[in-house]
Amino acid sequence: MSKLRVESFTISLDGFGAGPNQDLDHPLGVGGTSLHGWAVSTRTFQKYVFGAEGGSEAGIDEAFAARGFRNIGAWILGRNMFGPIRGPWPDENWRGWWGENPVYHVPVFVLTNYVRPPLVMEGGTTFHFVTEGVDAALARAREAADGKDVRVGGGVNVIQQYLRQRLIDEMHIAIAPVLLGSGERLFEGINLPALGYVCSKHEASPLATHVVFTRKSNSPSQ
Amino acid sequence: MSKLRVESFTISLDGFGAGPNQDLDHPLGVGGTSLHGWAVSTRTFQKYVFGAEGGSEAGIDEAFAARGFRNIGAWILGRNMFGPIRGPWPDENWRGWWGENPVYHVPVFVLTNYVRPPLVMEGGTTFHFVTEGVDAALARAREAADGKDVRVGGGVNVIQQYLRQRLIDEMHIAIAPVLLGSGERLFEGINLPALGYVCSKHEASPLATHVVFTRKSNSPSQ
Repeated sequence: MSKLRVESFTISLDGFGAGPNQDLDHPLGVGGTSLHGWAVSTRTFQKYVFGAEGGSEAGIDEAFAARGFRNIGAWILGRNMFGPIRGPWPDENWRGWWGENPVYHVPVFVLTNYVRPPLVMEGGTTFHFVTEGVDAALARAREAADGKDVRVGGGVNVIQQYLRQRLIDEMHIAIAPVLLGSGERLFEGINLPALGYVCSKHEASPLATHVVFTRKSNSPSQ
Repeated sequence: MSKLRVESFTISLDGFGAGPNQDLDHPLGVGGTSLHGWAVSTRTFQKYVFGAEGGSEAGIDEAFAARGFRNIGAWILGRNMFGPIRGPWPDENWRGWWGENPVYHVPVFVLTNYVRPPLVMEGGTTFHFVTEGVDAALARAREAADGKDVRVGGGVNVIQQYLRQRLIDEMHIAIAPVLLGSGERLFEGINLPALGYVCSKHEASPLATHVVFTRKSNSPSQ
């Protein structure tokens, strides 16, 4: 079966994920520049997110950025990662942070409490708005991925919901040498060992420490 | 003035310091072996803690272990770091984890709620039991250190008390590639940037990511 993966999700030394609008795909959110320095340095990020040339073609950071885009057939995003609008959609003018040809190029399932028709973008990205919760989003994403993996983009709350159900198969977290002081703590109330996760990879660059957590079995170890 | 320093304090990827009896000086506590793998690998740790030969003489881990013992004139420890006994001292038989010639070789101020006369050990270590709280312990440690620095050994609660008062000048934290799942979270309720701390150093080995936090000014930045 296809995997459910978290990739390139970055937290601070004090454990906070970026605020709702701060992640790999929104590098300009508050604190985003320093938190995502490792990602911005990579060719993968420059190419996919900025549509630019440049960035490092080798090295640990690039390797982790690149793996995040491999074999992904669908994405799941929390609503705040799709845009800054809260509450009901006032209209259909907001079309995401990424312009008319977003970085995804596959179906993207956006969790929201407010119904909205699908939004077909250029380059293969279609935003589907899911109001039935994380399980429904995952079922639809798996179907759309057609055997490929599903990537959970975030934010913290969405990742936590999937972790608590032990649905995430692999999770790559980057720890950036930055202090945020407050925000949403990724591991708040999450006991990863008890959920069956182990740290299966650990590599550091000057810009981040990269770790991969893998679910080691189907039965909780607690 | 002499500095108040935290050195070689190790936390897990999910942010937990070792339990009360798990730190650089008690490597055999629960989870201690994996958490302190970086320290055990060093010549400094082998020599000071185990009285043994061996360990790496160079490299990032050794450099951080060694800096922790330089220019230290006194230590402050939480009571649980001194021993496993809780409540009133039943007698004076417990003399610390470290045998008759402990690793410190300077005065050590142990925070406790229970009065006990000082304990003079071999090699220059004297354990003083302080019942008047963290401020009194620091005043006595500074005096005893006679111009050298004071090292806070831990645990989490003691470090947090000094951080909240912005009394710690430098704090070296090692993040080990280990999950603990529960315990005391070092940064719980601590907003380091608001307290004026920045990450001033960041270096990683295969066994740990080392960071140093420095208090950047005497006025809070919040």
